[in-house]
Amino acid sequence: MSEPASNRGEIEALRLAYARIRAESEALASRLTPEDQTVQSMEDASPTKWHLAHSTWFFETLILSRWLRFYRSFDERFAYLFNSYYEALGPRHPRPARGLLTRPSAQEVLDYRRHVDQSMFSLLDDLPSRHEAEIATLIVLGLNHEQQHQELILTDIKHAFSCNSLEPSYVSSKPEAIESAAPLGWTSLPGGVAEIGYAGPGFAFDNEKPRHEVMLRPFRLASRLVTCGEFSDFIADGGYRRPELWLSDGWALVNRENWRAPLYWHDDDGREELFTLHGRSGRNRHEPVTHVSFYEAAAYAAWAGKRLPTEFEWERAARELQVDGNFLDDRRFHPRAARNQAGLSQMFGDAWEWTRSSYDPYPGYRSFEGAVSEYNGKFMIGQMVLRGGSCVTPRDHMRATYRNFFPPAARWQFSSIRLAEDA
Amino acid sequence: MSEPASNRGEIEALRLAYARIRAESEALASRLTPEDQTVQSMEDASPTKWHLAHSTWFFETLILSRWLRFYRSFDERFAYLFNSYYEALGPRHPRPARGLLTRPSAQEVLDYRRHVDQSMFSLLDDLPSRHEAEIATLIVLGLNHEQQHQELILTDIKHAFSCNSLEPSYVSSKPEAIESAAPLGWTSLPGGVAEIGYAGPGFAFDNEKPRHEVMLRPFRLASRLVTCGEFSDFIADGGYRRPELWLSDGWALVNRENWRAPLYWHDDDGREELFTLHGRSGRNRHEPVTHVSFYEAAAYAAWAGKRLPTEFEWERAARELQVDGNFLDDRRFHPRAARNQAGLSQMFGDAWEWTRSSYDPYPGYRSFEGAVSEYNGKFMIGQMVLRGGSCVTPRDHMRATYRNFFPPAARWQFSSIRLAEDA
Amino acid sequence: MSEPASNRGEIEALRLAYARIRAESEALASRLTPEDQTVQSMEDASPTKWHLAHSTWFFETLILSRWLRFYRSFDERFAYLFNSYYEALGPRHPRPARGLLTRPSAQEVLDYRRHVDQSMFSLLDDLPSRHEAEIATLIVLGLNHEQQHQELILTDIKHAFSCNSLEPSYVSSKPEAIESAAPLGWTSLPGGVAEIGYAGPGFAFDNEKPRHEVMLRPFRLASRLVTCGEFSDFIADGGYRRPELWLSDGWALVNRENWRAPLYWHDDDGREELFTLHGRSGRNRHEPVTHVSFYEAAAYAAWAGKRLPTEFEWERAARELQVDGNFLDDRRFHPRAARNQAGLSQMFGDAWEWTRSSYDPYPGYRSFEGAVSEYNGKFMIGQMVLRGGSCVTPRDHMRATYRNFFPPAARWQFSSIRLAEDA
Amino acid sequence: MSEPASNRGEIEALRLAYARIRAESEALASRLTPEDQTVQSMEDASPTKWHLAHSTWFFETLILSRWLRFYRSFDERFAYLFNSYYEALGPRHPRPARGLLTRPSAQEVLDYRRHVDQSMFSLLDDLPSRHEAEIATLIVLGLNHEQQHQELILTDIKHAFSCNSLEPSYVSSKPEAIESAAPLGWTSLPGGVAEIGYAGPGFAFDNEKPRHEVMLRPFRLASRLVTCGEFSDFIADGGYRRPELWLSDGWALVNRENWRAPLYWHDDDGREELFTLHGRSGRNRHEPVTHVSFYEAAAYAAWAGKRLPTEFEWERAARELQVDGNFLDDRRFHPRAARNQAGLSQMFGDAWEWTRSSYDPYPGYRSFEGAVSEYNGKFMIGQMVLRGGSCVTPRDHMRATYRNFFPPAARWQFSSIRLAEDA
Repeated sequence: MSEPASNRGEIEALRLAYARIRAESEALASRLTPEDQTVQSMEDASPTKWHLAHSTWFFETLILSRWLRFYRSFDERFAYLFNSYYEALGPRHPRPARGLLTRPSAQEVLDYRRHVDQSMFSLLDDLPSRHEAEIATLIVLGLNHEQQHQELILTDIKHAFSCNSLEPSYVSSKPEAIESAAPLGWTSLPGGVAEIGYAGPGFAFDNEKPRHEVMLRPFRLASRLVTCGEFSDFIADGGYRRPELWLSDGWALVNRENWRAPLYWHDDDGREELFTLHGRSGRNRHEPVTHVSFYEAAAYAAWAGKRLPTEFEWERAARELQVDGNFLDDRRFHPRAARNQAGLSQMFGDAWEWTRSSYDPYPGYRSFEGAVSEYNGKFMIGQMVLRGGSCVTPRDHMRATYRNFFPPAARWQFSSIRLAEDA
Repeated sequence: MSEPASNRGEIEALRLAYARIRAESEALASRLTPEDQTVQSMEDASPTKWHLAHSTWFFETLILSRWLRFYRSFDERFAYLFNSYYEALGPRHPRPARGLLTRPSAQEVLDYRRHVDQSMFSLLDDLPSRHEAEIATLIVLGLNHEQQHQELILTDIKHAFSCNSLEPSYVSSKPEAIESAAPLGWTSLPGGVAEIGYAGPGFAFDNEKPRHEVMLRPFRLASRLVTCGEFSDFIADGGYRRPELWLSDGWALVNRENWRAPLYWHDDDGREELFTLHGRSGRNRHEPVTHVSFYEAAAYAAWAGKRLPTEFEWERAARELQVDGNFLDDRRFHPRAARNQAGLSQMFGDAWEWTRSSYDPYPGYRSFEGAVSEYNGKFMIGQMVLRGGSCVTPRDHMRATYRNFFPPAARWQFSSIRLAEDA
Repeated sequence: MSEPASNRGEIEALRLAYARIRAESEALASRLTPEDQTVQSMEDASPTKWHLAHSTWFFETLILSRWLRFYRSFDERFAYLFNSYYEALGPRHPRPARGLLTRPSAQEVLDYRRHVDQSMFSLLDDLPSRHEAEIATLIVLGLNHEQQHQELILTDIKHAFSCNSLEPSYVSSKPEAIESAAPLGWTSLPGGVAEIGYAGPGFAFDNEKPRHEVMLRPFRLASRLVTCGEFSDFIADGGYRRPELWLSDGWALVNRENWRAPLYWHDDDGREELFTLHGRSGRNRHEPVTHVSFYEAAAYAAWAGKRLPTEFEWERAARELQVDGNFLDDRRFHPRAARNQAGLSQMFGDAWEWTRSSYDPYPGYRSFEGAVSEYNGKFMIGQMVLRGGSCVTPRDHMRATYRNFFPPAARWQFSSIRLAEDA
Repeated sequence: MSEPASNRGEIEALRLAYARIRAESEALASRLTPEDQTVQSMEDASPTKWHLAHSTWFFETLILSRWLRFYRSFDERFAYLFNSYYEALGPRHPRPARGLLTRPSAQEVLDYRRHVDQSMFSLLDDLPSRHEAEIATLIVLGLNHEQQHQELILTDIKHAFSCNSLEPSYVSSKPEAIESAAPLGWTSLPGGVAEIGYAGPGFAFDNEKPRHEVMLRPFRLASRLVTCGEFSDFIADGGYRRPELWLSDGWALVNRENWRAPLYWHDDDGREELFTLHGRSGRNRHEPVTHVSFYEAAAYAAWAGKRLPTEFEWERAARELQVDGNFLDDRRFHPRAARNQAGLSQMFGDAWEWTRSSYDPYPGYRSFEGAVSEYNGKFMIGQMVLRGGSCVTPRDHMRATYRNFFPPAARWQFSSIRLAEDA
């Protein structure tokens, strides 16, 4: 989602964006039964229904309750149930217990969405002029926030379904496979001072700012993501049993959790299979490996004699490219093998790329103002940056400067590996 | 549920019992939404849907698959999903993850029940004569098993609802309250040799057998259960802060979990409230205290200068009484204050009574034969015996010799306290 | 240790017992370096130095501080450091951190013992006549308490040494081995009313009282303990991999902890070895298996088609025997194979015998009075009774009515198995 | 410790450094009893004796066993006992169980040191000329390694002593206090390209290399460390109860662990005290706050309206200063209040300074070769960089480019806070 709006035409665009993005969340949920929408398969994940309600709570709490005159909340208890982590907005339902909320029902959550949407349209019809810019900014933030939860709806239900031996599918039709991945090439990029971070007029998260200068050394990026076939070679070469390839915490985790392959791989009885949003399926050696942790990405790079790029190298390379690729909009719900093309492919879409950069604040970083100051800044510890978006990210949510972040052990996102090396 | 059957009339009675008890489970579940039926609020509890499917799996696995010719399983994967703890019957879905089973849906579970019920009726129409007695015995066991899960459906959903700040009700209408509890009296019982355990012709669990002699000393039993009001006095007198009243493990638990009252009590802002199957409600000082652990029961008894009865004392007193009281059949779903009556009241129904007896095997104990040998025997460690049934136990499931058992820390059952003392 | 004393001769006997038992503790510790005496290898165990100080604290706190006029405590801070679990006697150093007490040094603990011993002798020289009986009773209790800690000094240091790959020995000389165990026979015992519990004039713990009648069925006891060789047969027959042999909690533990043999067994490279207080040693197939949990004892019995005796059966059989056997006084520090003899052997000494009895209070149980009321009663939950004493129990500490108790998972005591069966 | 050596004079200097640094470790340990040297108070810490043996193991395993002809190991089992984390050098004694090693005794560890030292001197007498440079490099590394463990000996024993209510002192004499801290000033530093990392001829760790260019913005550094008095103001202003000041993980930790002040602060009954290596002592408001986690440092900075410096800013400022300050060599064992002086004070010594930089590899980072490749690189995840050394760091161990690192929750090091702000 792009920038805030300050005149009639811009407000109209905002209304359309609101309608479109809010509808998309419900479209994604509509493939799921009420029971599917209720469960939480691990503390990191949330129920579909909770995502639908929480993204609605965001508009209600941060916008309607402040600026819509005579706004009556749908149910005052939802302020407690659907606050995620905003300390400034009061206590909240405990995160690990989100999957116990059989009530409100999926239908009641849709009613809640109706109520808030109608109120938002009322507000957009009659924006208080003194606060027009501020409200528009918050709406754009709310829509970008909702898009983030669209991605989580899909990665979270994938995890929940994977815990059921019936292995339900989120979608039944399988996408066409590309028969062979493009060969691995290398693209050279120059060193020197690079401008990093967002500086345009449109929307960007606070963590992408301010634009600042970073000194780079010349480097090379792999032309595409590491494939399942290549990752299988790593495994066959003892990748998960050779401590010298691993960071110390990663090696401890591999042994504690007995990791032997990426999440969702199944190799029982010699079959090479994968759990996907289409259910269990044969594993395509040409498609990008996904659902690897940072630890696995770094171990693979060590094994290959390469390294992971920094987030600055990645952004330096990406800023000259179109934001194009295999996104949520394409309704594949799965990454696709790289096509043969010149230069870098799969930089956007398909799968997030772990970088060798800790999620630290940029020099001069200032968080958003007000309650949304908790949006990003307080998570800047213990996490690694991922770049580029995935097959379940909305295309217009993505930018070259976009910084996603997860702890190094996380595997349930569509996370993959792009190699780099010094020039 | 009573005894096995071996002729036409008895088989007809069995068919009727089957139809009635199976229908009762579905009636209990029918007050719940599909979402309610899906969740699991703690490892000890299970989803409603799982209870409905597991009790069906019991008939399918232990009876139909062995004796109904040409029986085709409804879904072979259910053998894995709905096995509870029978090692002899293969691996099973992990217990703590039962609440992730969004599929099969509540409707599919009902379909599964239909399929198994029809097959069971077919089998009853044409019982293989050589195995008639064995099959009838297993059916009776299966029905008693199903009745145990009826009670768990209610105690488990009560726990799940209590985790939701919306505090849903299982039933909306509140039962009439009795205005005052009978005063506490004492009934004397003689010592000497008592016959303990089941020896009749009807059904009883293996853990109730064999009947054997136990030497008792003369003792007295309180005429009714401890009330909420009496338990409040214990609290007001520092009951939860005085280590000398507690068993060592209990004291550690009180402090680790910061227990200050029975489970489901709410005393915010001076209100004396309770979470019930009817939702949040004012607390009736006259009704029996429930949802206390064995530790709390023993601490209360120590505070009162009394003790808990042994299971043998309880049975000695109960065997002369009618099995009557406030049971599931009464649809109160909540205990009731003791009525004024001569002798012992509330011995059956209302609430389970913790005894000062560890759940050890009786002398000469033999477990059931075959796969159902795992039914009771393997749990005879680390648990305490409770007696008498509760307001969510089916009346015809109860007997004076019935031994229920839970770990001393368990609080989510309708468990209460009856005092005893040496004569 | 035997009974309290109330006249001159008895007081003199008490003084001698005091001198002898206190000296024995120090003799046991004297084989250990100050460093050995400092560490704690798990929460259940305690450092040698702590045992020496805690048993001294007992005399100081419960006797000297009350009855020795002008008694000056050695160091007031020791009241906090060396209280074990007496809530009535104030807060205490956390149990899991006992192994961090580098100070006081082993020498200072000996000085503390000197100080208390001298004060105790002063008190014995001039007992306040009004309290003579009470004080004598507490001294006898304190000496029995000290003897219990003598056993723990040895089992705890054995565990600590087993955690060190240098495998230190507590004693260097190995005891002579008996070449072959007596063949397994069975002794029949009659049913009927048995008098259980202590009723004599001498000392017994409160948990052995009151004497009361228990109804027994006729039964048989194995003539000796299960041997290492027999237990090896159980292992070879898949004993640790067959769930049908195990109690449910035991089976979970076997898998969680990956148990494949008793504690301290080593079978690397086909060698049959054992860690002992003499260091690593070859395993004698004829000697009793030790360091098994109740779960392993019960599983072995199930495999053998037998059962464990109840504590009442054991006591019924033991009460006619001399308290004789392989005790601490023999300085073997290890069990010995059963000699050929008529009737029951190894009932006393060698190794504790797990019974199929939960550690419940006897009918009419009353705890000791005063602070020592916490001695036994508050632990009467979640534990199983063991009988008979071991090769590290002082002989004069043992009685037919003596009830030892440990949680069913405990393995670091010299605990073994005697089989029983119905007659 | 400085650089490797390649001719006679340099080897002689190396021999002297070896003798001096090895002796220093033993001097530090000599203030402790054998018992003190044995215990481990938490998994992060190690026993003194283990530090002494492990730093010796380093020379034995990495140098003597490879290059000293006919070298006979002191005890082959020590290779297992005293390997810290080198996967390439085989399995090792479990880290959390280091405190159970009562054997070898403190004296045996000293004998081990003698044995290795004599062998090292033999090797230095007759260095194989082809490997002279390589060996010299490893010796210098070994000595720097030993110096790191000197610091840990002191911080680990401080923690162990703090767990004992006797509160032993490491040293008895208290250092003189400076009566008032210098007022807080600010030093401006320019932006632009800064050369970061080590590039000289002497020794530096691999993590300090390669020197590379980093782009800085103009910034200001506080002239001294935050004092105890200033940190008390933060506490009095609700610092530990205001979520808006904290990173999310830090806030969770504060609540989980109930942190209310830095580690080792005691404010019982209104006294302002501190546990130090000199025992319990009054708290000097002028001395630097220490034993704060990164989370507390960042929360303090947020409260003060400032921020923490990046490690690059810190190094940019430090590279023009003398490496001078309050170090281990001064035998104060405690930080000192800042003296009045122009510019930056306390940059070196007194206390480590948390930076707002994750411990990531420098561009072009290459780990050491061989087994010591595990020295630093594998820990480059989940940790934050600290700079400047402390009052228990040897002075000649410190450099402006030196990067220390700990997880953000660590508090048992002498870690403090220096504020920064954008210019």
